[in-house]
Amino acid sequence: MCLLDSIVAAVAWEAGKPLVIEEVEVAPPHKVEVRLKILFTSLCQTEVIFWEARVGTNTIVSSHFLAMKLQESIGEGVTDLQPGDHVLPVFTGECKECRHCKSEESNMCELLRINTDRGVMLSDGKTRFYKNGQPIYHFLGTSNFSQYTVVHVGCVSKINPAAPLDKVCVLRCRVSTGARISGASRIIGVDLSPHRFNGSKKFGVNEFMNPKDYDKPVQEVIAEMTDGGADRSLESTGNIDARISAFECVHDGWGVAVLVGVARSKDDAFKTHPMDFLNERTLKGTFFGNYKTRTDLPSVVEKYMNKELELEKFITHHVSLPEINKAFEYMLRREGLRCIIHMEKLENF
Amino acid sequence: MCLLDSIVAAVAWEAGKPLVIEEVEVAPPHKVEVRLKILFTSLCQTEVIFWEARVGTNTIVSSHFLAMKLQESIGEGVTDLQPGDHVLPVFTGECKECRHCKSEESNMCELLRINTDRGVMLSDGKTRFYKNGQPIYHFLGTSNFSQYTVVHVGCVSKINPAAPLDKVCVLRCRVSTGARISGASRIIGVDLSPHRFNGSKKFGVNEFMNPKDYDKPVQEVIAEMTDGGADRSLESTGNIDARISAFECVHDGWGVAVLVGVARSKDDAFKTHPMDFLNERTLKGTFFGNYKTRTDLPSVVEKYMNKELELEKFITHHVSLPEINKAFEYMLRREGLRCIIHMEKLENF
Ligand SMILES: [Zn+2]
Ligand SMILES: [Zn+2]
Ligand SMILES: [Zn+2]
Ligand SMILES: [Zn+2]
Repeated sequence: MCLLDSIVAAVAWEAGKPLVIEEVEVAPPHKVEVRLKILFTSLCQTEVIFWEARVGTNTIVSSHFLAMKLQESIGEGVTDLQPGDHVLPVFTGECKECRHCKSEESNMCELLRINTDRGVMLSDGKTRFYKNGQPIYHFLGTSNFSQYTVVHVGCVSKINPAAPLDKVCVLRCRVSTGARISGASRIIGVDLSPHRFNGSKKFGVNEFMNPKDYDKPVQEVIAEMTDGGADRSLESTGNIDARISAFECVHDGWGVAVLVGVARSKDDAFKTHPMDFLNERTLKGTFFGNYKTRTDLPSVVEKYMNKELELEKFITHHVSLPEINKAFEYMLRREGLRCIIHMEKLENF
Repeated sequence: MCLLDSIVAAVAWEAGKPLVIEEVEVAPPHKVEVRLKILFTSLCQTEVIFWEARVGTNTIVSSHFLAMKLQESIGEGVTDLQPGDHVLPVFTGECKECRHCKSEESNMCELLRINTDRGVMLSDGKTRFYKNGQPIYHFLGTSNFSQYTVVHVGCVSKINPAAPLDKVCVLRCRVSTGARISGASRIIGVDLSPHRFNGSKKFGVNEFMNPKDYDKPVQEVIAEMTDGGADRSLESTGNIDARISAFECVHDGWGVAVLVGVARSKDDAFKTHPMDFLNERTLKGTFFGNYKTRTDLPSVVEKYMNKELELEKFITHHVSLPEINKAFEYMLRREGLRCIIHMEKLENF
């Protein structure tokens, strides 16, 4: 339970600027907290959106959606985890006590739901990261672009120790809600970037359309391709116009549009013709695929272990922690689906 | 199968003007059509909206949502109905052949879905109503403010002949999707008109709020009353701002907002903050309670016969056909829930 110093982490000193690899100090976990050693983490489009839109001008240890870690030490009051356990930390936690945690439908824990503004731990309102005595703040509750991190125990999911850590670290909303899994027979991918067409085949996409190739709105093109509209649509870019199109492209009578991931801007307005609702369409928001961190994630890992879920195909790039800005560039250029960040490969540092 | 003349009907000679009671002629039913004798029909807010917004400047025999009728004669190709059957005609029909009719989730039949613009029969593009040789057009497929009418067989639901015709004529979307039936323990009615508070108790409403009594938006007041938001909301006025409030007042994580009935204006835009979808809210449009005319309505009537559904309490007024403009006034003044129009009481004419 000692203070760890000379830990390498990627720090955002300024919003929108490249991360800087720094040596930092990590304090021990407090009550109901755990300190984790991070082996692998990953980066995808969602994190880039978060990073672009929400990382403030404070110094922050940047963090990621899901990352694979080994638990290193535990704080007082932690009963269901032991040092050595294999865990996945998630930015949206599960306290198991609140109305959301007790509801079967919600994963938006009142205590530990995503918070892009809070850079400190809940117990004492302080950070566990320091550099030369100056605080470096947490981000999204996990702060896992770091060799070690401290998180609330409710943000940690204990998983099968046999699961390969460099694969299950990519587990996340888009994988879990991916259209492939829902058993659709015809899946049309819509993307402005032709680079992503090949990649999206991995999700089971067997037809493509680029909105730039048409003079009319996406929803009209899809209505023509599908004889009136899609049965179901999934929107995961967070772009507001794409979300409106995703809703309007589903078939009246039975169509369901599912909005995945995060909205790009706090100022956007979702706007549609009310007749589209009259026509028995449904619009549903999901967050992290409606999975509960502690309750549901271990069974998603089991799905992978039982070969019901493929993860390898989503992994397109590998970098070491010092190369982390490269991973951001891949995502900004929409070249990759998911980049694994290897925390141990520090030879270039 | 003769031409019926001297039939009394309520005719809209001009949009927005009172209906005029006229003697008209009704032609026999063509192929897959039936001619019905109307005994009772009813009027509620939805019809007033339709009438205000959609009845054009053509002369039209006005029509209503659901009405109770006895079938009088049948056209060629009608196999599942016989003269003497008791039926409910509905403006949204069921052809039983199209994708919507074959889908379990939709009742928006491709052939017979609601059409506020078509004033003629599908088979020949002509009307079955005439006055002095001049056509008088149909409205909403049923045109039942008339002693006799002609409708497509797909718009007719054959019901239990023991069902009291002057009660089941009020069966409709709001009754069937009413909050009472869903078994909610706490039901908050929201209405700008205090007149309707007593009436809404019949739907099971046990608390009230009038948006006029507050300085802040309805959704914020409801969030405070319900510790974060309602589990479910139903919006049935068609007012666009009310619909947006209905969506935004449901609890994040599990809330579902259901939009019932018709939109008031074709130009309205449904506009909300995208974060509200991110937070796992669901917005669902229903139309006529998702009931299929021919398949589902007979069993709703059975529910009434088995006392699982109350209808009497919804009936607030009675008028005869010549007094039909009074019924419109009641609804415009929001005084009543449902007015029964007695077609046979023509003594004042
Ligand atoms: Zn990711
Ligand atoms: Zn909780
Ligand atoms: Zn009505
Ligand atoms: Zn049909």
